Amino acid sequence: MLTLYHYWSSVCSQKVRFCLSEKGLDWNSRHIDLFGFEHWKPEYLKLNRMAVVPTLEHDGRIVTESNVIIEYLEDAFPGPSLRPGDAFLRARMRHWINLSEAEAHHNVNTCSYNLRHRPRLMQKYSIEEIRGLAHGHPNSDLRARMVQRAERGVGEEEEAAAYRALAALVDWMEESLSEGTWLAGDVFSLADVAMGPYVNRIEVLAHPEILAADAHPRVADWWARIRARPGFQQAFSFANPDASDPVKR
Amino acid sequence: MLTLYHYWSSVCSQKVRFCLSEKGLDWNSRHIDLFGFEHWKPEYLKLNRMAVVPTLEHDGRIVTESNVIIEYLEDAFPGPSLRPGDAFLRARMRHWINLSEAEAHHNVNTCSYNLRHRPRLMQKYSIEEIRGLAHGHPNSDLRARMVQRAERGVGEEEEAAAYRALAALVDWMEESLSEGTWLAGDVFSLADVAMGPYVNRIEVLAHPEILAADAHPRVADWWARIRARPGFQQAFSFANPDASDPVKR
Repeated sequence: MLTLYHYWSSVCSQKVRFCLSEKGLDWNSRHIDLFGFEHWKPEYLKLNRMAVVPTLEHDGRIVTESNVIIEYLEDAFPGPSLRPGDAFLRARMRHWINLSEAEAHHNVNTCSYNLRHRPRLMQKYSIEEIRGLAHGHPNSDLRARMVQRAERGVGEEEEAAAYRALAALVDWMEESLSEGTWLAGDVFSLADVAMGPYVNRIEVLAHPEILAADAHPRVADWWARIRARPGFQQAFSFANPDASDPVKR
Repeated sequence: MLTLYHYWSSVCSQKVRFCLSEKGLDWNSRHIDLFGFEHWKPEYLKLNRMAVVPTLEHDGRIVTESNVIIEYLEDAFPGPSLRPGDAFLRARMRHWINLSEAEAHHNVNTCSYNLRHRPRLMQKYSIEEIRGLAHGHPNSDLRARMVQRAERGVGEEEEAAAYRALAALVDWMEESLSEGTWLAGDVFSLADVAMGPYVNRIEVLAHPEILAADAHPRVADWWARIRARPGFQQAFSFANPDASDPVKR
């Protein structure tokens, strides 16, 4: 029995849902309302000490961190193999899994804040309420950062640097795709599972031209092939279960 | 043929040397003088786009990022297995490999700067020279950060937050070690390889009490067992090849 604690539009949640679909695995959904700060509640912190989504529960055992979860699904279940057999291609795969966290996640998060996260937060709460809610988080430094971001937004310089980093990452993908049709060679792998949801998000941020097909024809072709996969479509069809709730949506 | 591009006291380099020793693998050393900015030179950037050490070359093929390298060594070579067979324990192993980068590395680096890195930098260069050297780095944002850190050092608040994060990580290790003698269960694994060098560094930073044995008896015992391993001793016996050179040391 697999249960995924996740949020519909969280990129790391999308990554794990994409992996689950590609592996052909059934799972139960436990939607965690991030804008209701459900991930900061004691019950959730018992499962996920870092207070982030997603969390996977498999027969009562807990696995956290999206990159750890996707390798776990590959280790624990048969079905389509999403890891190349060759050691060197496997290293290339892990290189991209790693970049999806170290480069893509951090910078996509920074670029998403003013455009997407802050308006949703501000629609629901006053700054005073956010300060109050922040007390729920166990980590005082993350708490302070969260309040500061809500108060001031992400600074122009920080945001510009994050967009530059994303553009450099897409350049790198373009180069990498000259060596194979997928990111870790000629076979679709966890590298593509890890990067797909970030490219999906970059497309809706303030600088979609980062993905311009004339400058990055191989990335454009890869991205079209990712979007065409039934596994991707299934993972991204998960809609906000609170969309009709005027408070929670 | 294995060649490691590394720096004697870089924690990520120590991690890979520790892994190579535990696997019983021979390798050639190519020492990269970080304080001579050799890692920013075009020849090195061709191998390692992020301008960091270490880089592994195996029969002419390049693998970068210490966490990717240690899994590669496990995939590519026989010898003592450093990954548990069980999928769930393997996820625990990757969880700690991941934390060694996401939590330990970042914060150890912040805490090492004022205490260790900046004095060595300032002994060799004026701020003007550092500004000049910075032009060699391909990433303008990392370049700006490097110059800013050299000018001002790491701020008190940033440093204090990093020490708090390291203390929380050691608390977490203590909890994790209640479930097995090693970080991923009862078998020594890449999790221990990844965390050992960071605990070694924490011990020589400004707050070694983070490791106090009375508060963390299991971590103290684990750390004594790590230090006693011939593989660890061999990896850490690699001395600065420029120690006798008054300019490079």
